[in-house]
Amino acid sequence: MATIPAFADLVTCLQGLPGVGPKSARRLAFHVLDMSPARAESLVFAIQRARERTRRCSTCHALTESDPCGLCSDTSRDQHLLAVVEEPADVEVLERTREFRGHYHVLGGALAPLKGIGPDDLHVADLLERVAREKVAEVVLATNPNVEGEATALYLARRLRPLNIRVTRLALGLPVGAALEFADDVTLSRSLQGRREV
Amino acid sequence: MATIPAFADLVTCLQGLPGVGPKSARRLAFHVLDMSPARAESLVFAIQRARERTRRCSTCHALTESDPCGLCSDTSRDQHLLAVVEEPADVEVLERTREFRGHYHVLGGALAPLKGIGPDDLHVADLLERVAREKVAEVVLATNPNVEGEATALYLARRLRPLNIRVTRLALGLPVGAALEFADDVTLSRSLQGRREV
Repeated sequence: MATIPAFADLVTCLQGLPGVGPKSARRLAFHVLDMSPARAESLVFAIQRARERTRRCSTCHALTESDPCGLCSDTSRDQHLLAVVEEPADVEVLERTREFRGHYHVLGGALAPLKGIGPDDLHVADLLERVAREKVAEVVLATNPNVEGEATALYLARRLRPLNIRVTRLALGLPVGAALEFADDVTLSRSLQGRREV
Repeated sequence: MATIPAFADLVTCLQGLPGVGPKSARRLAFHVLDMSPARAESLVFAIQRARERTRRCSTCHALTESDPCGLCSDTSRDQHLLAVVEEPADVEVLERTREFRGHYHVLGGALAPLKGIGPDDLHVADLLERVAREKVAEVVLATNPNVEGEATALYLARRLRPLNIRVTRLALGLPVGAALEFADDVTLSRSLQGRREV
């Protein structure tokens, strides 16, 4: 549809979204054109309203409509337990487990020297300051289990140790429901290293 | 993020898009919030402009900014050859092959009695009328090679036959680059039925 610039522009725009390749961008664009006016309006409105209303919590940097966020201002949560995650989405993922009852701290990414992302580009300074101020007893390093997340966890552990608190890391091992046969070698090694008495 | 209605609304809206499940809707929503104001504006603008500017060609029902569309008004194309497709997207797919130099006719779907879609819900009447008026010599039935597309092709062939024109169907067979081993039985059967002398 080289003859339809408005359509081509929309496809280009949609192709910039994560997980959207040239084919799905076209499919999405055709869908957007076929939407009822009401549905198209509510999509545009939802984008604009979400961008206007949401901000980052000044304490934990998670996504919120009010500052401080609902999690930070929830006094029923354990104030002495703090989970450190990379992105706002990770807060939501951990919350869904209903396993963690402490507070959160969003770094805004992970250390990646090759991409020029150092500690000053992340919310590291105010994490250290917050741990000291809020008398945190345990920091759970819940960065991603990949190279950058591991490096970030190691770096934070080294910075947190002088504060004389407990510093823990999410367990690495076999995902529940998986088969040994299909586990990769690194995961299986970590699973052996972390084996527990039953 | 149950505490962030604007975010939840955006996720719900995005989940209505084709191929976007709950997880990718969340991922897209976070991406939309992290966009620069300029990029967010251009996404919204692209959606609105594409919807305002594009319409269906009154002749072939393909997507266009001008009516009749570029393909219908292109006099260098073969006027006596007409490809019938289900959706506007299919026009683009066929155009990319540079193999077809005739005109198009978009049905707007396929026959699906179980979903209540009959000939009157598709652009069938004006296809017949167009074939007669434009002195079409051959109609290529390029509906999808699935149950509904096949049924539609058979139905159209029966309606077109009295007009004394050539009615053809896209060849069914093995996709280029595929291995016999991985072909499904139906495709392989069709491929045998359609075998050609070399």
